[in-house]
Amino acid sequence: MTRIAKRMSLIDASGIRKVFDLAAQIENPINLSIGQPDFEVPEEIREAAVRAIRQGRNRYTVTQGIEPLRARLKSYLRAQKGLGEAEVLITSGVSGGLLLGFLALVDPGDEVLIPDPYFVIYKHLTNLLGGVPVYVDTYPDFRLREERIRPLISARTKLMVVNSPSNPTGVVYSRAELEMTARLAREHGFLLLSDEIYDEFTYDETPPSVASLHESTLLLGGFSKTYAIPGWRMGYAYGPPDLIAEMTKLQQYTFVCAPSFAQYAILEALESVRNEHREAYRAKRDLIYEGLKDAFEVERPGGAFYIFPKAPWGSDEEFVHAAIQSRLLIIPGSVFSEARTHFRISFAAPDSVLREGVQILQRLASKSVQK
Amino acid sequence: MTRIAKRMSLIDASGIRKVFDLAAQIENPINLSIGQPDFEVPEEIREAAVRAIRQGRNRYTVTQGIEPLRARLKSYLRAQKGLGEAEVLITSGVSGGLLLGFLALVDPGDEVLIPDPYFVIYKHLTNLLGGVPVYVDTYPDFRLREERIRPLISARTKLMVVNSPSNPTGVVYSRAELEMTARLAREHGFLLLSDEIYDEFTYDETPPSVASLHESTLLLGGFSKTYAIPGWRMGYAYGPPDLIAEMTKLQQYTFVCAPSFAQYAILEALESVRNEHREAYRAKRDLIYEGLKDAFEVERPGGAFYIFPKAPWGSDEEFVHAAIQSRLLIIPGSVFSEARTHFRISFAAPDSVLREGVQILQRLASKSVQK
Repeated sequence: MTRIAKRMSLIDASGIRKVFDLAAQIENPINLSIGQPDFEVPEEIREAAVRAIRQGRNRYTVTQGIEPLRARLKSYLRAQKGLGEAEVLITSGVSGGLLLGFLALVDPGDEVLIPDPYFVIYKHLTNLLGGVPVYVDTYPDFRLREERIRPLISARTKLMVVNSPSNPTGVVYSRAELEMTARLAREHGFLLLSDEIYDEFTYDETPPSVASLHESTLLLGGFSKTYAIPGWRMGYAYGPPDLIAEMTKLQQYTFVCAPSFAQYAILEALESVRNEHREAYRAKRDLIYEGLKDAFEVERPGGAFYIFPKAPWGSDEEFVHAAIQSRLLIIPGSVFSEARTHFRISFAAPDSVLREGVQILQRLASKSVQK
Repeated sequence: MTRIAKRMSLIDASGIRKVFDLAAQIENPINLSIGQPDFEVPEEIREAAVRAIRQGRNRYTVTQGIEPLRARLKSYLRAQKGLGEAEVLITSGVSGGLLLGFLALVDPGDEVLIPDPYFVIYKHLTNLLGGVPVYVDTYPDFRLREERIRPLISARTKLMVVNSPSNPTGVVYSRAELEMTARLAREHGFLLLSDEIYDEFTYDETPPSVASLHESTLLLGGFSKTYAIPGWRMGYAYGPPDLIAEMTKLQQYTFVCAPSFAQYAILEALESVRNEHREAYRAKRDLIYEGLKDAFEVERPGGAFYIFPKAPWGSDEEFVHAAIQSRLLIIPGSVFSEARTHFRISFAAPDSVLREGVQILQRLASKSVQK
């Protein structure tokens, strides 16, 4: 028996994995559990990667990422998000940026405000480093409310996570919510960590980045979802130069650098390639929301590719278990929340699969009446 | 000013980076500072990567790495290193495996035995997690001696790092040294962490992996050096199933998975591609050792692509500074050691560059006489 470090007892295996393991045993599943786009990598990017590999872009790059990509990212962030001069680090996906950011910021005992429901990494990284996750209840509509945040702020509040569009709810925070959050952060001197991995997937409004409203914001973004390349592990961090310098120092001893060929491919892509799937994904959002809204208590997602309905009967796990018995793969809400009441559907799937999923869900919901 | 976590004050920027920054200001440097091979990626592997990208291997893989690659690695480790059944995790390079391994093992206050000179990540990861690096002096011949290790073992000794062939010394530990180390580990119940990234670069003998001598060994290996693909970030961890399970759990929340396309490319490569550069690198080793042995106090490296001579005058930094003034880029030994007496030369460079480097070094050494 290996003597494992104590910090490991503070985290557990992802509940998503458990569903994936279940899924592996089901024939022909209707899979609405996947957190990655269902479209192909745009040809320009794919071929830019092929060229990079053939041209020998296979060695280490500098720790912070290749200079032309960092420069282009800064202009991209200026043009797309109205952001000014701060520093940029190329990371191994948003998860790479999260690890570096949490390591550089969270001391044991520090409190991290996490709107609940949440993307599961925030909670685990906080725990792993001896920090204290403090959950901001956002049910039932997944909106940020000042009266719920304010009582949770303490002298130990180090940062607050903002994830908009949100995984797992698909909610996009309004400008008013972001301004309120920025004001609280300024008043109480804490940082914001803005995870904007779904920024190219908004279907109604596109409010500003909270980084444009509060200087002490660590913005994490990436290309996995927009360009359908999660396997390339490519993201970026943008924020206060002193923080980015610490994260760069850490990157030397952890990730070393983001994958080299992908940096060159993204450099070409950022010039020209936009998300061409926004319309299609808006239609998927409409399909799933319209299909569920009468049978479920459910919010209409403004972005990402998730919807987070309330289970019509039973706990989240009981309902998801029944769904999986009907070959439908979805994720119990407790994977993303302290509550055990909802479930996550990913609509990054072909329309025909979505329609099948809706039918099964409608059938399952009606069972509550028979009970 | 961002409030940075306290752990960050325990690590500093890599001294290698400082040399790289200096290097950027020098025209036509004779660069013997680089820790990556100077040959090209074998065509089979390059084209396997291109096929993987074009065939859509751009999505997440499962956390632990694709099953066929893990299976093939197990047979590879059986055939190449005589290792039995243990578990395998595909990591983002050896540095990725190091981070996961240290996080899963090192509690605050735990002691980590590190032979000095050392690859710099071991020290920084230990410090970052609140562990205590305990240096095993291996000067002047960089050999492991029982009488130097034994007095350093305590009840808090959690693991000992073994890095053979070694960066920065090029030393390959003998079977006797490895057996002695395994015996101490067994007696005192600590783990071994065997970093075997240079395993395909041995020029005289190839002793066994210490993992075949001590069951509680975390073996980390990779493909960056053998196939000249450090930018792909591909490595593996092999070890006790309970430890690999914890590292896999951590990978979910940090690296997510190793780059997808590269896993498929390595799967093809492992079948057929060997290191074809061993002969050429042995000749480089001979060239540099023969060129230096009369003018410097220096050990003949048995592996890797480094040699670690003693500075003939001044501190390591004074000597390296003089070398850089002569356009020769080398790394001060104190980057890799608590001592300030040696310097590291990488011989992963064209022979003509090595010859130029030797000439400059001979000239610099002779200055000690004039002093």
